[in-house]
Amino acid sequence: MSDLDKIFNPCSLAVIGASGNRMKFGSRFLNAFLKMGFKGKLYAVNPVAESCLNCSGYRKITDIPGPLDHVIVCIPAKYLPMIIEQCVQKGVNSVAIYASGFSESGTSKGLQLEKQLATIARKSHLRIIGPNCLGIYCPSTGLSFRDDLPQKAGTVAILSQSGGIAITSILSATERNIYFSKAISYGNESDLQATELLAYLAQDNQTSIIMFYLEGTKNGHKLFHTLKMASAKKPVIILKGGISEAGNRAVISHTGALAGTPATWSAAIDQSGAIQVFSLEELVDTTLALMTVKPPRGRNLGLISISGGSAVNLADLSIRMGFSMPPFQEHIKKELSKLLNDPGTGIQNPVDMAAAFFYTDNFKNVFQLLDQDDGLDIIIMHVSVEHLIRFKEIIPNKDTLILQAISDALLTLHKPFALILPYTLLDDQRKIFQKQLLDKQIPVFPTIERALQAIKHSLKYHKTRIKK
Amino acid sequence: MSDLDKIFNPCSLAVIGASGNRMKFGSRFLNAFLKMGFKGKLYAVNPVAESCLNCSGYRKITDIPGPLDHVIVCIPAKYLPMIIEQCVQKGVNSVAIYASGFSESGTSKGLQLEKQLATIARKSHLRIIGPNCLGIYCPSTGLSFRDDLPQKAGTVAILSQSGGIAITSILSATERNIYFSKAISYGNESDLQATELLAYLAQDNQTSIIMFYLEGTKNGHKLFHTLKMASAKKPVIILKGGISEAGNRAVISHTGALAGTPATWSAAIDQSGAIQVFSLEELVDTTLALMTVKPPRGRNLGLISISGGSAVNLADLSIRMGFSMPPFQEHIKKELSKLLNDPGTGIQNPVDMAAAFFYTDNFKNVFQLLDQDDGLDIIIMHVSVEHLIRFKEIIPNKDTLILQAISDALLTLHKPFALILPYTLLDDQRKIFQKQLLDKQIPVFPTIERALQAIKHSLKYHKTRIKK
Repeated sequence: MSDLDKIFNPCSLAVIGASGNRMKFGSRFLNAFLKMGFKGKLYAVNPVAESCLNCSGYRKITDIPGPLDHVIVCIPAKYLPMIIEQCVQKGVNSVAIYASGFSESGTSKGLQLEKQLATIARKSHLRIIGPNCLGIYCPSTGLSFRDDLPQKAGTVAILSQSGGIAITSILSATERNIYFSKAISYGNESDLQATELLAYLAQDNQTSIIMFYLEGTKNGHKLFHTLKMASAKKPVIILKGGISEAGNRAVISHTGALAGTPATWSAAIDQSGAIQVFSLEELVDTTLALMTVKPPRGRNLGLISISGGSAVNLADLSIRMGFSMPPFQEHIKKELSKLLNDPGTGIQNPVDMAAAFFYTDNFKNVFQLLDQDDGLDIIIMHVSVEHLIRFKEIIPNKDTLILQAISDALLTLHKPFALILPYTLLDDQRKIFQKQLLDKQIPVFPTIERALQAIKHSLKYHKTRIKK
Repeated sequence: MSDLDKIFNPCSLAVIGASGNRMKFGSRFLNAFLKMGFKGKLYAVNPVAESCLNCSGYRKITDIPGPLDHVIVCIPAKYLPMIIEQCVQKGVNSVAIYASGFSESGTSKGLQLEKQLATIARKSHLRIIGPNCLGIYCPSTGLSFRDDLPQKAGTVAILSQSGGIAITSILSATERNIYFSKAISYGNESDLQATELLAYLAQDNQTSIIMFYLEGTKNGHKLFHTLKMASAKKPVIILKGGISEAGNRAVISHTGALAGTPATWSAAIDQSGAIQVFSLEELVDTTLALMTVKPPRGRNLGLISISGGSAVNLADLSIRMGFSMPPFQEHIKKELSKLLNDPGTGIQNPVDMAAAFFYTDNFKNVFQLLDQDDGLDIIIMHVSVEHLIRFKEIIPNKDTLILQAISDALLTLHKPFALILPYTLLDDQRKIFQKQLLDKQIPVFPTIERALQAIKHSLKYHKTRIKK
C-alpha cells in the first residue's frame, strides 16, 4: 500500500475538536464518519477528554492507546504546530486540517505558520492535507466531511481546492445518479500537492472520470504534465476558478493561489487533453455525458419532440450550439410517413410526434427508423413534464407507461442518445421521472443546450484520443 | 366595446365536440371553463345533443336558445365550413378553431378549406381565431384552454402561434409568480391576425408586458410597424421560431408560415425596439427581470456569496456574461473589513461572507455598504440551497431566518438587486424558498448566467427608451 492508499484506507481516526457540543465542526466530522459507516476505531480529542457520540474522548492524540492512522483537525490555526508535532510523535500517517488563517489569509504570520507545518511534516512520514480544506470523502471506506453525502460509492473522483465546490459538486452529481470513488478537498497544498493526488487518481482502478476544481498552482509545469498523463488514461474535467480579473481577486482572498491569465490556462488545459468547463452545471453534465452517452461519431443530430413549437425551438437551439440536423434519408422519411400521418405530426428532422405520442407502440418504430438513418450520429428525445403529468390525469399510470415505452425504445438504439426532461415544471414528479430514467442508464438533461454542450466535450475528448 | 374586447368578455360560450365522453378534447375545454369559474352560459354541442358536465347539450349551435358570443370548435377540419356558416347564422361574435389539417398541412385541400372559412367570416362580423390553435386564456373572465392554468390574473400577456409554447410559457411563468392578463394561441391567422392582437395588447390597460412566440408572418412590413408601436408602449419579448434551416423545416410542417432568414429577423426585431430571446427559459427570465428588477444604470455588478469557491466562479461567469465587477471603493472596503474580519471571509468584490453568513444581523450592514458604493449599478446575492438546508438541520428554522434576513436586507436597497437560488439541489425545499422570496418581490433566478442575460435585456430596453 502506498502512502496515498493509506490515506483512503485508515483503520483508526481521531477528530481534534470533537466534543460533547454537537454544534462544533469537530463533532460534525465525527458524526459524518459514523453515518458513513466507518468500520475502524474513532476517537474524539478535546481539552476535557469528553466523549462524543459514543466515541471515547482524549485530551491529546498521544494519550490514545494503539495506533492512529488519520487525524482531522478542527481547532484554530495557532494550535497547529503543536498538533502536528504530536501527530509525528504518535506515528500518524495523514492529517487533514480544516482551519483557515494560513497562507490564504495573505498575512506573513499565516504564511509562516503554514511553512512551519510543512517543515515538521517533511522531517517525518506524516502527510498533511490542507490546511484550509475539508479532507477526504471515500464512501467505500467510510470517510466523509459531511453527514449528508451518499454512502453509495461510484467511479467518479473529485479533486477540489475548494471545500464548498466539492460539496456542491457531490450533492448535485448525486441528483443525477453520479456517485464517487473519492473526493479530496485539498486546500492550501502545504504538503500534499494537487499534482500528487491527480497522479494517484489517474492510476486508481476505482476511478474512471476525474473532476477537478482548481484556483491556481505553485508549479504550472508539473501540473501541465500530470494533467497530460492523467488525461491520456481517463477524462479529466476542469473547472478553473479565477479566469477573470474579478475572479482572480476572489481567488487571492480564498486560497491565495496564483491564478495566471485565462488564455494561458485555456491553452494549457486544451493541450493537456483535459476538458475545460465553466460552471458547476457544465461539470456535472459533462460527467454524465461521459458516463452514459456513447461517444458519437459527429454532430449530426436527429431530434424527436412531441409538440410543434418545441420542435422548432429545439432545432434552432441545436443549430446555435453548433450541431447539424440533416433532413432524414428518403427511405427513412417514407417509412416515417407511414407511421406518423395524422394532421399535426411532422416527419422532417425534427420529428413532431404530436398526438401519436399518446400511442406508446409508436416509439420503438420511430426510434428504430432514425437509428437506421446513416446521416445521423446521435438521437435526442424531448419530453415535457407538463405533458406527462397531463396524460396521468387523463389515464392513470399513463405517464409511467409513456416513459417506460420511451426508455425501452431508446435502449434498443445502436446510436448514442439522450433525453431532455426540462425544468419547466419543478414538480416533484419531475424528480421521480428523472430518477427512473437514470436508473435505466438513460442520460437525462434539463435543456438541450446543456445536453449538447456536454456531448460536445465528450466528442472532442474521444476524437483527441483516437488521433493519438 | 371593440370586436376584440368582446372576444375576451363573452357572456355565453358553446364548445362543439363536447359530449358525455370526458376524454374528448371538446369536453376538456368545457371542463377548463368550469374550473376557471366562467360566469356566463355554457353549452355542449354534439351529434346526439348529450349534456356534458351539467351543461345542456345541443345538436347544433343554431338550436341554442338566446344569444351566443364565442364558440370553440373541436371537431375535424372537414366540418368547419358548415360550422362557420352556422356561426354566422347564429350571430356569433368569435370562434376559435382547435382542428388542424388546414394551410399548415401543406396540402392544396387544406389551404382551400382555410380560405373558404375566411371568405365566409369576412362577409359577416364573425372573427375566426386559428384554425390550428387553442384560442383564448383570460383568467379575469374565466376563459381557458386547459383546466390546470392558474385562475389568478396578472399583467403579462402572451401571443403565440403555437399552443404548446403558450401552455409551457404560462405554466413555467406561474412557477416564478408571473401571472397573465390574456393569452392567445392564434395558430394559422385565417382571419384574426397576430398584428391585430399585438396592437390590441399594446393598448390593453391590463397588460404591462407582452410575450410573443411567432414562427412567421404573411405581412412582415405590418408586423414590423406594429412591433415598433407596441414596443414604444411596453416591453415586447419575442421568441422567434425557425431561425435555422432545420427550425424552418419544422416551422413549415408546424404552422406553414414563411420564416425568413435569421439575420433579417434579428435586425427587424432589434430595430423595432422589441427584445429577442432564444429559449423559453430566457423568455420567462426576461419577463421576471422586467417585472421585479429595477432598471439598472449600467453593468457594474456587486456580488455577495457565502462560499469562496462559488464567489470565484460567480465572478468569472459574470465577466463572461459581459458585466464588470469593479473593486469596492476604499471607504466601503474599510467599513466592510470591520464587519467581516474572520479568517475565510473575502471583502473584495465579490464578498465571501463565509461563516459570517450564519449571523443574520450581518446582512443588512453588508448590503447597505454595497448600496452606498457609487461604482456599483446592481447587487446580486448567491445562496445555495444545500447551505440553507444544512443550517436548518443544525438549528430549527435557521433556513427561514436566514432567508428572512436576506430578504429584509435586499428590500432596503436603493440599487437594483437579484438573488440566485441554484437548482443544484432540486429539493422540495427549494421551491418553497423560491415562492417565499418571490412573494416578497425578491427576483429569484436559478443561475447567475440566466439572471444576467435577463437583466441585460432589461438594461437595453430601458436605455433605448431613454434615448427616444
